[in-house]
Amino acid sequence: MNIWIKNATVLTMDDKQMILENTNLYVEGNRILHIGEELRDFVAEKVIDANKKVVMPGLINCHTHIAMSVFRNYGNDVGLETWLQDYIWPAESNLTPEDVRIGSEVSIAEMIESGTTTFVDMYYYMDEVAKASEKMGIRAVLTRGMTNPTKEILEGEREFYRNWHGKANGRIEMMVGSHSVYTNNKESLIKERDLADELKVGIHIHLNESQSEVENSIKDHKLAPLEFVDTLGMLNKKTIAAHCVWLSDREKEIAIERQINMVHNPASNMKLASGFMEAQKMINAGANVCLGTDGSASNNVLDMFEEMKLASLIAKGRYLDPQNLDAKTVLKMATVNGAKAIGKEGQLGKLKEGYLADLIIIDFDNLRHVPNNDIMAALVYSTNGFDVNTTIIDGNVLYENNEHIGVDVELLKEEVNNIFNRLVR
Amino acid sequence: MNIWIKNATVLTMDDKQMILENTNLYVEGNRILHIGEELRDFVAEKVIDANKKVVMPGLINCHTHIAMSVFRNYGNDVGLETWLQDYIWPAESNLTPEDVRIGSEVSIAEMIESGTTTFVDMYYYMDEVAKASEKMGIRAVLTRGMTNPTKEILEGEREFYRNWHGKANGRIEMMVGSHSVYTNNKESLIKERDLADELKVGIHIHLNESQSEVENSIKDHKLAPLEFVDTLGMLNKKTIAAHCVWLSDREKEIAIERQINMVHNPASNMKLASGFMEAQKMINAGANVCLGTDGSASNNVLDMFEEMKLASLIAKGRYLDPQNLDAKTVLKMATVNGAKAIGKEGQLGKLKEGYLADLIIIDFDNLRHVPNNDIMAALVYSTNGFDVNTTIIDGNVLYENNEHIGVDVELLKEEVNNIFNRLVR
Repeated sequence: MNIWIKNATVLTMDDKQMILENTNLYVEGNRILHIGEELRDFVAEKVIDANKKVVMPGLINCHTHIAMSVFRNYGNDVGLETWLQDYIWPAESNLTPEDVRIGSEVSIAEMIESGTTTFVDMYYYMDEVAKASEKMGIRAVLTRGMTNPTKEILEGEREFYRNWHGKANGRIEMMVGSHSVYTNNKESLIKERDLADELKVGIHIHLNESQSEVENSIKDHKLAPLEFVDTLGMLNKKTIAAHCVWLSDREKEIAIERQINMVHNPASNMKLASGFMEAQKMINAGANVCLGTDGSASNNVLDMFEEMKLASLIAKGRYLDPQNLDAKTVLKMATVNGAKAIGKEGQLGKLKEGYLADLIIIDFDNLRHVPNNDIMAALVYSTNGFDVNTTIIDGNVLYENNEHIGVDVELLKEEVNNIFNRLVR
Repeated sequence: MNIWIKNATVLTMDDKQMILENTNLYVEGNRILHIGEELRDFVAEKVIDANKKVVMPGLINCHTHIAMSVFRNYGNDVGLETWLQDYIWPAESNLTPEDVRIGSEVSIAEMIESGTTTFVDMYYYMDEVAKASEKMGIRAVLTRGMTNPTKEILEGEREFYRNWHGKANGRIEMMVGSHSVYTNNKESLIKERDLADELKVGIHIHLNESQSEVENSIKDHKLAPLEFVDTLGMLNKKTIAAHCVWLSDREKEIAIERQINMVHNPASNMKLASGFMEAQKMINAGANVCLGTDGSASNNVLDMFEEMKLASLIAKGRYLDPQNLDAKTVLKMATVNGAKAIGKEGQLGKLKEGYLADLIIIDFDNLRHVPNNDIMAALVYSTNGFDVNTTIIDGNVLYENNEHIGVDVELLKEEVNNIFNRLVR
């Protein structure tokens, strides 16, 4: 779509010109055409007045399980193992593809209205997640969380790749999802690695989330999870490793050497009492650290603005360092670093000419945003997903003036209640 | 006002009947008349349909500096000492009473729209804070943050007591505000204690917020702050002690023995890299621990829902215990415990017959609240101040259907921008 956004304050996330005031941003088709002076000859299909608003790159949620919105607020104040074994896995045992479709649509709507324009998912019935993503217009990197996959499941992954990788105008891609070391034996991990090599895609994996996961891996494999999968050749610059809470010094070195992408999920890691990643330390050592919400069953929302504030505050409070994960750093984690993790550096994560038109417009005209002051601080410390006014993905306006376009939110709410009642009550 | 709230799910915060579904709540004048079956003879001036909403006690913010909204998002990613010395104190040096009035009105509006119905403040030009509180209808406990007060200032406190204590239908009370050990000498602390004894009110004080505060107190007084002020007789069950981040074992015992009220301010303590209170441990030991946002210059909002989620998550993540500060506990901190701290146990903090009608109505009919499930978990982990639909204080409806009643929000935003530009730019 051809869009002219005028009177805009633009947070580009580009170090050369981080903030541009009172400017214009033009979208042509699915790309950013120009940021700056008014283009006299541009024919806009839509004009958006961004006065008292801030335009910034859409947020990239690098680790989630979106269909788990069907279990939101189920199983609280329990640890990871109990949560999985006593709540989530039993409830999931009766989950249908239709449930996954509905849970995905609920979460995609929640992400769009709170400023997330790309997500990296791990779940199953991924065809349904792909269909929901295609239909609702979001950008998605989809991975099946494989646990000792059969030959049929591996073949299904090849089919998923053929059906979906690069589809929906390039909005949908796939990676190989290896659930974890604790749910895969060595042979399965090797098969998953081989599949990733064959398809030339990265691997998305849970690594070193809890202390007990590390202890069990050492018991079973004589190595902690990250070090163990490295011996299997699973780590490279395409790898997305979620959590990385409990890493040995050697594992930190390996993560840096292999240039893997690490996803910090502070809310979920804290809620399940796993701990949290030493993100600033990893960034200082040269790692690409991005940000994720994990699923909304362990968060219990998918709001990347909440996640940025949490990440920044816990780091300062835990390490007694007020500059730890400062506002600019967490904004980068949620944009630039996320784009790099999914192999879209130079295309996503910044607002620049030629980049994909994934952007959000934040309302600063409210009591939480006065006085108008430090924009990056305001985005991290005073902004919530509710402040998102408009969301544009791949040049399409999906959410405008706090309203979804073409989404039956009432129906989704009803459907997800029905699923929960059937599966849990 | 006589109000009938129907079709309500009521979170009473009373352990006997914590949650009542599909019920009625009646307000007569400024008190709760009845919760339960429909009253046939009640003549309602206002009927509120709370279908798909949750009615709960208004939140009590036990430590803040509301006028500091004029410095929101000023001085970020720096520690407490730098923040005060390089940013806040210089900017405050030119603050006028009118600035405090406007900053207070901005914050009161922000609190009302995000579900806070009572706040405990510490600042100066407290006449202006009182006037703003009276005008806007909120409940307030006001304290001047005294730093080596002159005789005139102490006399001014007596005058403030006479003018404001118990006024505005009992909505406004005062306590003696002793800023801290690091801003008062021993003689001043004694004068402040004597004033509190004379007026028969409690003392509101910052205690043991940062490590350097503790070190300096030990250097100056041979005792850490809490232990030092205890030797001066400043601690009793009316005392409200903010922060209490760095307490020795002996100080923890003293806090319990004296039955002081302790305020956990997780966002501000983390943002300024002070650390955070071991709240669950203190609660287990018998302390009354309540919750506060601190000022919006170090948070950077006044949203008690954010504060509850933060408190719960950091406790679980830091102490690797998923039951640490569970949903029910933090809800109590923000309601029942806050009421106790300000001497309003039996009148505030729960929804019960005869209690003051300070209540909020939360919208659960949105994507972040489906499926409908565990209400207390949803309030802590999925709710934000933006979800507050209606706020009633002392029987008056101040905010309804997400709109302020009788507040010129546009003017306030303009005024606070002008102040910031004058003081800082």
